This record gives sequence, structure tokens and C-alpha cells, in this order.
Amino acid sequence: MRDVFIAGVGQTPITKDTESRGRSLGAAAVNAALTDAGVEPQRIGALYVGNMLSGILAQQQQLGGLIADYSGLAGIEAVTIEAACASGGAAIRMAYQAVAGGMHDVVAVCGVERMTHVDRDAVTRALASAADWELEGVCGESFLSLNATLMRAYMDKYGVTAERFAPFAITAHQNALTNPNALLRKPLDLATYMSSRIVMDPIRLFDVSPVCNGASAVVLAAPHVTTRLASRSKVRIAGSALATAPLALARRADLLDLTAVSSSTQQAMKQAGVVHDDIDLFEPHDAYTIMTALTLEAAGFARAGAGLEFADAARIGLHGELPLATFGGLKARGHPVGATGCYQIAEAFLQLMERAAANQVPNAEVALVQNIGGTGATVVTHVLTREN
Amino acid sequence: MRDVFIAGVGQTPITKDTESRGRSLGAAAVNAALTDAGVEPQRIGALYVGNMLSGILAQQQQLGGLIADYSGLAGIEAVTIEAACASGGAAIRMAYQAVAGGMHDVVAVCGVERMTHVDRDAVTRALASAADWELEGVCGESFLSLNATLMRAYMDKYGVTAERFAPFAITAHQNALTNPNALLRKPLDLATYMSSRIVMDPIRLFDVSPVCNGASAVVLAAPHVTTRLASRSKVRIAGSALATAPLALARRADLLDLTAVSSSTQQAMKQAGVVHDDIDLFEPHDAYTIMTALTLEAAGFARAGAGLEFADAARIGLHGELPLATFGGLKARGHPVGATGCYQIAEAFLQLMERAAANQVPNAEVALVQNIGGTGATVVTHVLTREN
Repeated sequence: MRDVFIAGVGQTPITKDTESRGRSLGAAAVNAALTDAGVEPQRIGALYVGNMLSGILAQQQQLGGLIADYSGLAGIEAVTIEAACASGGAAIRMAYQAVAGGMHDVVAVCGVERMTHVDRDAVTRALASAADWELEGVCGESFLSLNATLMRAYMDKYGVTAERFAPFAITAHQNALTNPNALLRKPLDLATYMSSRIVMDPIRLFDVSPVCNGASAVVLAAPHVTTRLASRSKVRIAGSALATAPLALARRADLLDLTAVSSSTQQAMKQAGVVHDDIDLFEPHDAYTIMTALTLEAAGFARAGAGLEFADAARIGLHGELPLATFGGLKARGHPVGATGCYQIAEAFLQLMERAAANQVPNAEVALVQNIGGTGATVVTHVLTREN
Repeated sequence: MRDVFIAGVGQTPITKDTESRGRSLGAAAVNAALTDAGVEPQRIGALYVGNMLSGILAQQQQLGGLIADYSGLAGIEAVTIEAACASGGAAIRMAYQAVAGGMHDVVAVCGVERMTHVDRDAVTRALASAADWELEGVCGESFLSLNATLMRAYMDKYGVTAERFAPFAITAHQNALTNPNALLRKPLDLATYMSSRIVMDPIRLFDVSPVCNGASAVVLAAPHVTTRLASRSKVRIAGSALATAPLALARRADLLDLTAVSSSTQQAMKQAGVVHDDIDLFEPHDAYTIMTALTLEAAGFARAGAGLEFADAARIGLHGELPLATFGGLKARGHPVGATGCYQIAEAFLQLMERAAANQVPNAEVALVQNIGGTGATVVTHVLTREN
């Protein structure tokens, strides 16, 4: 199979507005990515759209064809990829497969989501469709309650207090301050974190990523195309893997063991030929602070129960040993669910291209990016490297 | 890229029940396909699920991971592909790409849909999500009304009467009589067709495919795997293409020109190296009789305005020059929307394997299979050939 490069990226600013249109957001991101890559629309072989909620909240399916049309790509191959909050990452993986396998030389990927044009109850209910509806949703479980179950189980098992999770959120807010596309550009300190309301015990408001709208796009290309583009990208997708686990927590052997994180991380890192020490930055799926802790353990950065050792601004800040959520992450950049995986890849690309400005991680050459659907049911992991 | 073979298929009987579960239907189809192929579950590299309505009508997204788990494939790569009523065909195409490109040696595809557990209005509204909601859905357009617009425009432009469309439906019903998985196993004659109620002028009840439930699965494999399987399949995917057109009828240059049918058919046939005379049977997307007429024209079997020349039992029956809808098609086998594309491929496979029993098309060696989302917005075309 061929090497695959990221030729360019586009992001729309994340908002909580009620007026943006899905097709316009998607087209804006796609066109920004095409411009960034310096690629003509007629070179695009396919468009894969990552989206979770448009059918439920906006009565609009078939976004592939719709966004292709409004992006000036009418006629091309286009489909929607859905894997709950991992939809964006899964769409990137499908595009990687298309280019690596030789089906297309250039593929555009667009993650798009609108969540704030409906009331909060509708969003909560729609997000619960990522869980097992028969076993969890019908019992009244929501994404919040399932994550509260995980966080409570973790705190009980390892005897840790809620404030230990705070640095994950504080660092995300710090990084978002200088990201023009981030939703939450305000600093967070421990006192504010601890005094924020408990939305579902033990989860505080600042443990949770916000409901919002946004679109991000990525152009993937084969090496012979990439070298001729104005963007002169040297960012390669060196590893790509997608793994699953049962949706319902009750069907898992161990609540606190994210098996799909372990297996997809191992596969992607093995393909890329990198070890943990090689990784210069990690964009985890920090939808909840507990997910970051569990992810660091399952991904092999810490042993079980030791993920919170990374909850330390000195270790995970932009100049730390393992920078996390370098543009604010899901927590502070925002989490427009089906779009998130594409924002993550776009941000890691900017880091490896040394285009991250105030958010730049020094000497970033290897990035790990992980997008998760449900409470660990679908996990897409990519390793990006800068080639010399 | 590698050759890709269909190793085995599975189908659940199509029903209008209110109790079937999506995960059970999906798992039954997947397991039937694995058994038919004679492949062990651990050989499966990925599962792609085609589905349109589960999120809207059953509060369940992330069907990839869910059906993988319930099929005994927990852990593997699994995602959902959505392209409205072309979801099943689009999932087949993604699997084709994964095997042809070398990402996986064996991939399972499952199309699944449940539509009769909710009331009819909910289904009508959900199906309208395949159209352009902002331009059509909000104006009260439904799939029925959009197809009525097309049929009326066709009748006016070419001066034909409604009864000219009847043979498409009559032939489908005839073929479904001997398909144990078909929903509508009752003969249809011209008098019954003409006396059926007009559901939306000029569309009669028997012009329309039924709302129903079902799942179908297909196993695709690389040649080195296929030759060692008990099924000893000789059915190859010789051509595969997906094209799009604007969703809204108002955004198309010519209402009656299905441009994505033309382009995807041409691409798939060119890849397969076949011409129209080579095709022994055609499974069109006969959701409405008008779609069959328009498809025959856009696919190059008839010139514009002449598609109804095929509306003749002698030409399209199992022993005709171009057998259509050989197991009953969407019209009489049934149209569980996201599953349909997989039923079509399964049926064409049975034809080329000479396993079609009473529905066998004599000497079937080349099959054209086409799955359409919306009123022609996403079109997936496959050419299957029997290798000797």
C-alpha cells in the first residue's frame, strides 16, 4: 500500500449559534482545506463526511452528496461515515484506506456537526444513541451518566479525589486561549473547577466538553500528488487503526479497561514503527476528564490506576513531556461530535508543520491522535509523522 | 489493486413485524453469510454496516460496533456507512475498496433496516431526510411527492399513460413469488395495478416499494482467501463505482436526467470491461416504477424517453433479453432502505453461482447491480462476473 500524506486542512470557528447551516459549515471547511492544500477541486476523487446527529437533529441524511454539491464537488463519490463521536476519525480512516489502497489519489474528509439549534433535552437524547439504547438508553442512561459511572468506579477503585482530574481541564483551557477556533477561550483554575456545579456526581461542569457546532476538513493525498502541491506537506499518516468494543458497559469484562483504545493504539503505533517515547504530542478524546485518565492507561502511557499521574500541567502542557489537547482539546476547543476527529487531525497537522503559532509544541515530529465513539466502543487511532 | 470476490451471502426474510431487533437481524445476516462463505469469524478484518434510519427511528447509532459485538466479531474494525437508500451499496463499495487496496483480506458487509416498529408518519418523515430538507422537506415534500413529480414530468414530456409502467411492477411480483425472503409473494396483473388506489397522482399503490424490515450480509475476500474457502465462489466484483448528484431536484439541470446513474454505470462497466450486450441481468433500484424507467435510460440501455420500451414482461422476465429485479426487486422482495443494496448483491451472487433455483436466469455470467439514494443523489453501481 502507498504512503498517505495530509495535504491541507480547514477549520471553522466552533460556535454555539443557532443559525449556522450544516451544508455551509461543511462547504466552508472543505474549501478552506482545498485552499490550504493548494489542490484544484477537480483533483478530488472522493469526499467522506463524518457526522453523527444530522439525521436525528436536522432531518438531513445523505450529507456526502449534499456537502459535495455545496463545496463545488458535485458528482464525485461521497458518503457519510458514522461511528458516534468517532465519526470524524472513522471518515479519516476510510479516506486513508482509499488513498493507501490506490482507489483515489486525493480524498477530502469533512467532519461536521450542529448541536445548538435544538433544545438541550433533544441533544442529550440524541447523544444517547451512541450508547446501547436497549440496555442503557431505555433505562434513562445518558452520556453524562455513563461517564459518571466510570468516574465514580475509578475514584472508588483507586481511592482518588475529584480534584485530581482538574489539571486535564485546566491545561485544555490554557491551550484554547490562543486557538482562534476554540469555543471556550477563558482560563480555568483549580478553585473555579472545584466550585463549579456537580452536573452528575462526581462529574463537575468543568469535567465535561461543551455542546457546540463546527466543521473541519482534511485533504489526504498520495506522495506523487503531495510533492507537487503548493502546501509541500511533509506530514504522513504513518499509522491508522480502528477497533471496537461492546457498546454497553455491562457487556465489558472490566468497566475501566478500554480494550479498543489498547488494541487500536498498539496497531497504529506498530504500523508507524514508533514507541511511546517517540510521541511528541497526544490529542486524546477528552470528552470527559475520566476518559483522558482511562485513555492514558489503555494506550500504554501509564499503568492501570496511574493515569492521573499525567494530571499535572508541567507534564502535559505545551512544553511538557507529553503535551495533550494542544489546541484546547474536546474540553475547550469544543466537541461538535461528528466533527471532532477531523479537528484533532487538523490540529496535529498544524503542529507537525510548525504552523501552530502560540500553541506550537517545540520540535513536534510525531503525533498520536485518538477519536472515541461512545464510552470506548469505537476507537480510531492515527499516528502522524513529519518526514524529512 | 487486487481482485475482489464475493465469498458468501446471507439474507433474513423481509417482514413487516414490529418486534424484530436491529442487532439480531444484523447478526443473523452476518452469521448466515459467514456460514455460506465457510469462513471463520477470526478471519474477518472489518465489518461495514449500511443503515439509514436507526438513529432517527430507533435511537441507536454506532451500529458497526453493536452488530460486530452481537455477531461474535467483538473488537474488529466496524463502522456505519450512510447514503440514504444507497447505504447498503455504499457499504459494499467501502468493503470492496478495503479488500482491493490490501487493507483487509476478508470484510463482512451488513445492510440492516427496521421501519415498521413506528407509525407510518414517522417513517415518511424519516425517509424525507434523504431529500434536501431545507429545499424540499420543509416544504412538505416527501419521497412519494418527489417521485410523483418525476413521474408526472415524464408522462407529460413523452406523452405516456400510467399503465405503461405496470409491467415493471408485474414482473417484480412474478419473480418474488418464488423468493422465500420476499415480502410480497402475490401475483399482480394489469387490472389489479390499474384499479389500485392512487397514493399521489400519478403514482399508484403498485408503483411503490413497501416499507419493511430486513438485513442482508455479504462477505468479500481477496482471491488467495476465496480459493481456499468451502464456498469456492467464482463471483468477482469486476466493477465498482459511486457517483453523486445534487440532492434537490431544483438543483439539477434536467429533472429526468439521472446524471449519477450515467456516470457510475459508465465507470463500473468500463472497469469491468463489459458492454450493455454482455449484461445477463440487472438489479435496478426499482423503489418506484418511474425510477426503473429513468434508470434504464441513464444507464444507457435505452435512449431518453424510451425506457418504457423495456416495460414488457417478455423483455425483462427471467428468460428475457434483460431480466430485471430477478428476486422481486425493491418492489416485491421489499425495500428495507439501508439493507437493500446488500440484498441486491446477494441476489446477483446467487444468480451467478447458479443457486437461484426457480428464479435462475439461464447462463447468467454478468450482473449489473445498482443502488440509489434519494431521487438519484447517490448512485452505487457494481458489475459482478462469474470467472471460469
